[in-house]
Amino acid sequence: MVAELISVGTELLLGNIVNTNAHFLAQKCALLGLSMYNQTVVGDNRERLKEAVSTALSRADVVILTGGLGPTEDDLTKETCAEVLGCPLAEDGHTRERIESYFKNGIYREIPENNWKQAMVPQGAQVLDNDNGTAPGLIMEKNGKRLILLPGPPVEMIPLFNGQVEPYLRKLQPEILMSRMVKMCGVGESLAEEMLLDLIDGQTNPTIATYAKTGEVHVRVTALAPDETVGERLIKPVVKEIKKRFGRAVYSVKEEETLEMSVVRLLKKHELTVTTAESCTGGMVAGRLINVAGASDVFKEGFVTYSNKAKRRRLDVNKSTLKKHGAVSRETAREMAIGGVFAADSDVCIAVTGIAGPDGGTEEKPVGLVYMACCFKDKVTVEKYQFKGNRGKVREQAVVRALDLVRRTVLEYCE
Amino acid sequence: MVAELISVGTELLLGNIVNTNAHFLAQKCALLGLSMYNQTVVGDNRERLKEAVSTALSRADVVILTGGLGPTEDDLTKETCAEVLGCPLAEDGHTRERIESYFKNGIYREIPENNWKQAMVPQGAQVLDNDNGTAPGLIMEKNGKRLILLPGPPVEMIPLFNGQVEPYLRKLQPEILMSRMVKMCGVGESLAEEMLLDLIDGQTNPTIATYAKTGEVHVRVTALAPDETVGERLIKPVVKEIKKRFGRAVYSVKEEETLEMSVVRLLKKHELTVTTAESCTGGMVAGRLINVAGASDVFKEGFVTYSNKAKRRRLDVNKSTLKKHGAVSRETAREMAIGGVFAADSDVCIAVTGIAGPDGGTEEKPVGLVYMACCFKDKVTVEKYQFKGNRGKVREQAVVRALDLVRRTVLEYCE
Repeated sequence: MVAELISVGTELLLGNIVNTNAHFLAQKCALLGLSMYNQTVVGDNRERLKEAVSTALSRADVVILTGGLGPTEDDLTKETCAEVLGCPLAEDGHTRERIESYFKNGIYREIPENNWKQAMVPQGAQVLDNDNGTAPGLIMEKNGKRLILLPGPPVEMIPLFNGQVEPYLRKLQPEILMSRMVKMCGVGESLAEEMLLDLIDGQTNPTIATYAKTGEVHVRVTALAPDETVGERLIKPVVKEIKKRFGRAVYSVKEEETLEMSVVRLLKKHELTVTTAESCTGGMVAGRLINVAGASDVFKEGFVTYSNKAKRRRLDVNKSTLKKHGAVSRETAREMAIGGVFAADSDVCIAVTGIAGPDGGTEEKPVGLVYMACCFKDKVTVEKYQFKGNRGKVREQAVVRALDLVRRTVLEYCE
Repeated sequence: MVAELISVGTELLLGNIVNTNAHFLAQKCALLGLSMYNQTVVGDNRERLKEAVSTALSRADVVILTGGLGPTEDDLTKETCAEVLGCPLAEDGHTRERIESYFKNGIYREIPENNWKQAMVPQGAQVLDNDNGTAPGLIMEKNGKRLILLPGPPVEMIPLFNGQVEPYLRKLQPEILMSRMVKMCGVGESLAEEMLLDLIDGQTNPTIATYAKTGEVHVRVTALAPDETVGERLIKPVVKEIKKRFGRAVYSVKEEETLEMSVVRLLKKHELTVTTAESCTGGMVAGRLINVAGASDVFKEGFVTYSNKAKRRRLDVNKSTLKKHGAVSRETAREMAIGGVFAADSDVCIAVTGIAGPDGGTEEKPVGLVYMACCFKDKVTVEKYQFKGNRGKVREQAVVRALDLVRRTVLEYCE
């Protein structure tokens, strides 16, 4: 079964709002096992909307429209869909009553005249009661095609979908779609795809897709199955194979687990505490760790040592090291990490020092050069990176790599 | 002139990501005075993409495509557009060199074979250099129609659009659209709209629109004019009036100046240094300040004091204060700020302590409660906030308010 979305609203075309409805509905359709090949956005214009609906009906089995069900003259979705399917509109007594009672308890003394328009329903349509507004949802069926009309505001649309549309669609679908995400760090997307090419090329069910995020690659394995047991059986060996190929680059196979969550989980598991000694990332590594609820078990304090003086004073970096090698150097990173462990009395310290730009780069030490060091008890690992992009991008990449260096260090010495 | 957007990517159809590119581009096109009647989303599928491009070209003068320019086999946007316009692909030496140099300084030892695909360019196309990735942008013209191809990742797409596509589109338009942004902090969007209602209602040219960001409201004043002088004459009195109404809530009237930039600018102007003493925001305030190139003039170091012990040890917060009032209290915030000034030997310290959740809230001190204090020489201002939302949202709002508190403090005592 193929589904298609039409989002109706001039505010989307003007960029006044982000189309979160399409995101929500696309996700839901994917989880329901519906294929989706097209989404469109059109304004509140009868001719263009008519064309969009006709085109969508020619391509899909289920067309979901959001928006344009309001009481104003601009709102044309219902009228246009009724016209396309050739169904006349008639007043629906039940909906009229609901509108009356909606207003009775509200702040308005009189029901605005144009709200009665919302009680008009295409003949034969299934009416979906809307508990959060006056526009009911509608399901219209004709010649095996289905049009589902939902109000635009997410606070009305989402409960309507979850409560009434999802069960309706579930009944139409014999199979379920299951997926698992393999998340990894330190491997580029191209390389990841190359390493998975044989799996991707041969894929039918499950399918494999890669997604790039700053410093990370996520691989989604998706299977269509009659039930969860079969789905699990299809997905499991593929996930196992991917994990085998990428080894320790994989930090999680849980959809909801972020890199920092996996770092905090690992530190907790081994009862370790961590501190941060940051120069160019300026608190962002600490900020990411504290994103994790319960980070206080492993993170007590961090240092933002932007100036050389702070590096010396807080982290006991040698004056001569700074003078001889500079603040952005292997040696300084190393001393920062060691100093952090002592200063915070922690098990691990991740130190980052680099040239984020746009100024401060030289031929020898260009913008984007970042050294990071991780001290774990008496061992220190230092890594050198040359990142691309502007100041923000350099720092963002450094943060991801720094978090990953903590993860890899703990794995290396504890597992 | 009519513009249309095509977002290419199966991840959009699966609902894995929100289509923020369409939002950004729709907003930009509206500001450039381009009309938009349709937006579409298609997957990485040659036939469907071809149909989408042909349809869009039949309706619009300018079609902007995002996504599908990556190095993998899935990425088909360039190939498909070239096919629709009948332009053969040929290797572009300049782009090939850029890809080589992109990888040369990077972390990869070898350039993945499939990246060379990105050096292939449709004949006659204008190549837009991408400083943040390997896929160049492309502009193709034929029979008065224009296809603009941009990479999907916003970190690549946005700089490409701003730097190269916007000037290109601006030249196509006879009248220029000028706009000025009034950026403010500490005023909600509804209140801002109420305070501007008379201006918004009577608007024709310039127009006024408000945009809400976390903790901020931006008001855009836009004028359509034959030239810059006329545009400036239209915009100036409106901006002046808005500034008058909102007073010190306005932190900038420069499009590109972020809140942290205005804070750093103000500190520099008065030759002041600042330090941070962060608990729940955990380094994010420092991170934001260091976003600003040249922050080293005003920021030397910061403290992430997540545990009580760290608050005592680094910031000299009294043990009895913590015991009597708790870590999240007016008194602790105050002592953190004072302690920060002394510890870092700075002029200003911003301290933040709060309950970000999801755990740790009580009836008396619920999740979202945040105290922040700003010490400026011997004066301390303490503020209490009750933020809504999840852990991330609470922390994000606290960061914005903390930066703004620094700004307001400096304004109060120095201007």
